[in-house]
Amino acid sequence: MITAKARAVDGPDKPFKEAEITRRDLDSKDVLIEIKFAGICHSDIHTAHGEWGEVNYPLVPGHEIAGIVTDVGPEVTKYKVGDRVGVGCMVDSCGECENCQKGEEQYCLKGNIPTYAGVDKYGEPTQGGYSTHIVVVEDFVLSIPDNIELDAAAPLLCAGITTFSPLHHWKAGPGKKVAVVGLGGLGHMAVKIAHAMGAEVTVLSQSLKKKEDGLRFGADDYHATSDPETFEKLAGKFDLIINTVSAKLNLDAYLSLLTLDGSLVNVGAPAEPLSLNVFSLIAHRRSFAGSLIGGIRETQEMLNFCAEHNIAPEIEVISADQINEAYERVLASDVKYRFVIDISTM
Amino acid sequence: MITAKARAVDGPDKPFKEAEITRRDLDSKDVLIEIKFAGICHSDIHTAHGEWGEVNYPLVPGHEIAGIVTDVGPEVTKYKVGDRVGVGCMVDSCGECENCQKGEEQYCLKGNIPTYAGVDKYGEPTQGGYSTHIVVVEDFVLSIPDNIELDAAAPLLCAGITTFSPLHHWKAGPGKKVAVVGLGGLGHMAVKIAHAMGAEVTVLSQSLKKKEDGLRFGADDYHATSDPETFEKLAGKFDLIINTVSAKLNLDAYLSLLTLDGSLVNVGAPAEPLSLNVFSLIAHRRSFAGSLIGGIRETQEMLNFCAEHNIAPEIEVISADQINEAYERVLASDVKYRFVIDISTM
Repeated sequence: MITAKARAVDGPDKPFKEAEITRRDLDSKDVLIEIKFAGICHSDIHTAHGEWGEVNYPLVPGHEIAGIVTDVGPEVTKYKVGDRVGVGCMVDSCGECENCQKGEEQYCLKGNIPTYAGVDKYGEPTQGGYSTHIVVVEDFVLSIPDNIELDAAAPLLCAGITTFSPLHHWKAGPGKKVAVVGLGGLGHMAVKIAHAMGAEVTVLSQSLKKKEDGLRFGADDYHATSDPETFEKLAGKFDLIINTVSAKLNLDAYLSLLTLDGSLVNVGAPAEPLSLNVFSLIAHRRSFAGSLIGGIRETQEMLNFCAEHNIAPEIEVISADQINEAYERVLASDVKYRFVIDISTM
Repeated sequence: MITAKARAVDGPDKPFKEAEITRRDLDSKDVLIEIKFAGICHSDIHTAHGEWGEVNYPLVPGHEIAGIVTDVGPEVTKYKVGDRVGVGCMVDSCGECENCQKGEEQYCLKGNIPTYAGVDKYGEPTQGGYSTHIVVVEDFVLSIPDNIELDAAAPLLCAGITTFSPLHHWKAGPGKKVAVVGLGGLGHMAVKIAHAMGAEVTVLSQSLKKKEDGLRFGADDYHATSDPETFEKLAGKFDLIINTVSAKLNLDAYLSLLTLDGSLVNVGAPAEPLSLNVFSLIAHRRSFAGSLIGGIRETQEMLNFCAEHNIAPEIEVISADQINEAYERVLASDVKYRFVIDISTM
């Protein structure tokens, strides 16, 4: 067993505190990673607070992990000690189902094994990246290109792939008009990536407060959704809308912004059901869709794409003692645009 | 002015009675059609009853029209006297917008001109096919292939194209698993067409009452949606679900039947909004979409496809005096599977 220092919560209302967890000894294809940085994703907060179903506490969240390989199992071929690597939202899947075979492990028919709050194939609870070490089978480890700093790499493993995947799947690119709803951790990555893909990018944010940032990230246009005129002015304009907001939206209003055959794709899921008028879809053969992170192959493509286009998230690096405060600031939308924990402070 | 005999309603609660209407004199590109048969579509009933917004009465419904050309304007090039032709749900569009230019006139950005209950470019109300004659610009007239009887051709102009278009757009064909929800006027056409396209077809109907019919129409499988086991047995199975039912469905249950990247496509729109849990979409990158009839070019393709594959709707031919009774029977689901009015009885 490998011992790791971590920060864990003991219950839905409990603060993070120091903890010691164990990681399994390396199996033949396992990689031991010394974690250098871990991003704080909104999902971490939902899960830590028990808002997404029952959780076995103590819980160590974190699925935006960047670090260095410090040991490998005897049959590992993809990585060696010293490699710069990342781990995202999942650490394993069945590998055999139709979806895994297609490289879409996130949609594993048996359910992928999430990086934390899951149970691994040894029957042990998984614990995430707010810790000094993690052991992951090599097929779920990503290679971080040299020109991406490790602190900036961390948020790419969730915020990056979650937005890259639908932009890629729904073919954002030259000649395509893409809107991004919400300019937070996911939204700001969506803007940077869609812009680098060559699409014309519009941000739809509640207010114009972050307009300067949005334009700097590559948006061509920026509108406040609190202004009803926005929905008139932009009617029928977009080929693709990526909705990064988990709050309950007026779907019909957003669907009305799509052109013929356009798609509104949610990457966040509000807890409550959403309602829509089917005529909003029928009127222009529009689609309302959803997308979940991305497969491992696609995640590597995303990292390589970000390296090639010099795309990095905007981050604020914090120490391990600041996690509780950071959670409060995320909930208050006081983050530009992703907190990343410096694990060396743990 | 050309005088035509018709059957019209004078108000939302009124029965059909004999009427005389006028059709415009032929403009340069107009075709005069002597109508032989007109199908009764559920939309006719909604519109006649004023359920889809305000209507200017008297109203002559009917957008499943088959007949013979009896005169043509001086610049008509596509048709000549004696041709077997059809008219569907629209009789004109702007012809200039992006969607019209793509041949998707049903999605005309200025709004297509519906065959009835609309206003044509001369400012006159449009009146439909429950009448002896109609004048339509040649671009919105379809050619009916020789081996399709005129009575059977009529329902293809709405029920046929409304189901052909999404099956074609979402690529139903060999290797694809398609479910059709509802085995009525639209549903039975969807089954025949999807089967002819080479897809594996499953009918999802409330009960098993019409199972024998469904299998005869080409379905490979047939399940009752009133049986909760249906949703367990078929979970994650279908690439495409065509929903022909306008009633409020449990969308999450139907979405759970889709495989990765599958689409649930509504061709009918319930009056009330529908609700769904976004996670039903995110879980397997599913889409919920809508589709409206089809363009003129695609409608001709559909007619040719039906001719080639010997596809015809199941019809019950009625006389003009039976329209009121037929409406009641449609509302009671007592129709196999489309009423067609023999206009010679008018």
